[in-house]
Amino acid sequence: MTLNAKRPSIPVVAVVGTGVIGRSWVQVFIRAGCQTRIYDENPEQIEKALTWLDQDLEAEQADTRRSLVSVHTSLSDALKGAGYVQESGPEQMEVKKAIYARLDEAADPNAILGSSTSAYDMSEIASGLSGARRCIVAHPVNPPHVIPVVEILPGAETDPEVVAQTIEFMTSVGQTPVLLNRYVPAFLLNRMQAAVIREAISLVESGVADVDAVDAVIRDGLGLRWALMGPFAVADTNADGGIREYFTRYGQAYKDCMDQLGPTPSFDAEMIERLGRGTDAMSGNAPHSETRRWRDRLIRKIRDLKAADPRPD
Amino acid sequence: MTLNAKRPSIPVVAVVGTGVIGRSWVQVFIRAGCQTRIYDENPEQIEKALTWLDQDLEAEQADTRRSLVSVHTSLSDALKGAGYVQESGPEQMEVKKAIYARLDEAADPNAILGSSTSAYDMSEIASGLSGARRCIVAHPVNPPHVIPVVEILPGAETDPEVVAQTIEFMTSVGQTPVLLNRYVPAFLLNRMQAAVIREAISLVESGVADVDAVDAVIRDGLGLRWALMGPFAVADTNADGGIREYFTRYGQAYKDCMDQLGPTPSFDAEMIERLGRGTDAMSGNAPHSETRRWRDRLIRKIRDLKAADPRPD
Repeated sequence: MTLNAKRPSIPVVAVVGTGVIGRSWVQVFIRAGCQTRIYDENPEQIEKALTWLDQDLEAEQADTRRSLVSVHTSLSDALKGAGYVQESGPEQMEVKKAIYARLDEAADPNAILGSSTSAYDMSEIASGLSGARRCIVAHPVNPPHVIPVVEILPGAETDPEVVAQTIEFMTSVGQTPVLLNRYVPAFLLNRMQAAVIREAISLVESGVADVDAVDAVIRDGLGLRWALMGPFAVADTNADGGIREYFTRYGQAYKDCMDQLGPTPSFDAEMIERLGRGTDAMSGNAPHSETRRWRDRLIRKIRDLKAADPRPD
Repeated sequence: MTLNAKRPSIPVVAVVGTGVIGRSWVQVFIRAGCQTRIYDENPEQIEKALTWLDQDLEAEQADTRRSLVSVHTSLSDALKGAGYVQESGPEQMEVKKAIYARLDEAADPNAILGSSTSAYDMSEIASGLSGARRCIVAHPVNPPHVIPVVEILPGAETDPEVVAQTIEFMTSVGQTPVLLNRYVPAFLLNRMQAAVIREAISLVESGVADVDAVDAVIRDGLGLRWALMGPFAVADTNADGGIREYFTRYGQAYKDCMDQLGPTPSFDAEMIERLGRGTDAMSGNAPHSETRRWRDRLIRKIRDLKAADPRPD
C-alpha cells in the first residue's frame, strides 16, 4: 500500500495492549514513522505481536519495525516521552477504568490517552481522573492498518484542543478520523453495520432469499459504490439534481420501504446454524486466515486505486 | 474492464425502452456479443442512447456496437428473433401492464420477457397474459453495465425453467443474477440500502454526527469490506470460529444495538436541505456527471481486482 507521505504530528507514541487490535495499531504508527513504545501485561502477547509484525510487514518495513518499536516491561517505562497513547485492553468497564487510572498517573502530563473501545463512553471511563481532559475514544475498525476509519469520541470532560490534536494526529498517520458529537450506543460504524445485518437476517429468516443471494447484493452491488462513497454521496449522484431531487422524488417510497423493514432477529442457535451453513457453502475449504489475508490485500489495492484517482471536486 | 469470455446463452435480444437503464443494458448485451435489437416509442430516446453508446464505448467496442445493434421503428419488428427481451419502460403499473400485453402478443413464443422494474410484482404485471409463464423481473442496479447484480424475481405463474434460463443468460453476459424466492416490497437491494439510509439520516438528525462523518464511516470503513464480501461473509471472517462463534458471542450486543436504531425519517424539506448542504460540501464544484464517470471508472477497476484475485475457496 502507498505509504503515508506526511510526518506524524506526534512523533513518539505508546501502544498499551498488543492483541489483535493493538498490534495492528503498531503497524499504523511505525508506517507513519512514529517511535512506538509497546507494553502488554502479558509478555506472551508481546512476543506474538512481534512475530506477527515480522511476518506481516514487507522487508524494508520490517527493518523499520526493528528501529522504531521498543518493548517495555513496565507501563510507566513504556509511557515515557509518548505524546499519544493508544489503549487496546479488554472490553470490560472496570478493567478500562483501572487501566485509565494507571495511564493518567504515569503518562506525560500532555500526553493524549486514546482508547480503542468499541462500546464505552469516555465520560464514564475517565470519570474522576485528574487528567480526564486528555482522555478520548479512538475506536478503529479491525484491522486499523488496513481499514482507515477511526471513530473519535470525546468524553464530557475532554478538552476540545485534545479532540483537535487527536484528529490531526490520526490524519497525519494516514487514518480517517470521524468525529462523533456525542455518545450513542455502538457508535456510528457498528450501528450502520447492525442496520444492514438486521435486514440481511430478516430476508433470510422470512424466506425471501438465501444467504449467498443477500451477500451478493452487497458484494456485487451496493458495496461496489460504498467502497467509494457513503450513502449520502450515492444519493447525491443518483439524480441530476443531486440529493435534494433524489429524496424529494423518492422520499415517500423510502419511507414506505423503511416502515416495513424486518425486526430484530433472535440470534437463537437454530438461526445461527442456518447462517453458518450458508457461509460454509460460500467459503469452501479456505481457512478464515487465508480469506482475511485476501480481504486485506484487496482492500489495500482498492485504497491505492482511490488514492491514485480521487473523487473529483 | 475485462470482457466476458463466455458466449451468451441467448444470442439475439431486444431492448425495449432505451432511457438511462435501457441504454446501459444495450452495453451489457453487446459486450457479451448479443445481436441487440432496440426500440423506444420516442425516437429521440433512441438517438440519445446511440450518441451515449458511441461516447461511452471504447473504440473497438464502438465498432462492435455498429455491427451488433439494430434500431427498429416498430415494436413487433424489434422483437423478431429475440430470445430474450429486456423491458425498461416507465415505472407505472398501468404502463407496465400495457407494455407486457404488447410484448406477449408480438414476441416469439419462447422468448423470455424480463422487466427492469424496481418495485412491481410480476404476478400483477403478467396477470391474465397467455404468456405469463415467460414473464420475469430482472431488476438491475444503475448502471447495469458497471454494477453486475440483477435481482431475478419470478411471478406466480412464471415457469421454473424460465427462471433457470434467465439466471443462465444473465450469468453468460457477465452479470450476477440474485434469485428472490418471493416478492417483497423494494426487493433485496433497495431494502438493504433503505436500512443504511434510515440509520444514516437518524444519526445526522439526532446530532450524533455530520453528513460527511456518516459517509466516511462507509466509504473508508465498512464499504471497503462490502466491495468484497457481504455482511454474512464479513461476520464469518470476523472470528476464528466463523459466523457461528461471532453471532453466538456478539448476538446479544447486536440485539441491544438493533433495538434502538433510529426511526424512519420524515424526508421533509428542512431535513432534505440539511442533507443537501452536507453533500454540497463534499462534492465541491465537480458536476454530478463527472463524479458518476469517476465512480464507474473505479468500480470497473475494483471488479478487475476481484476478477484477477478471487476469494480463495
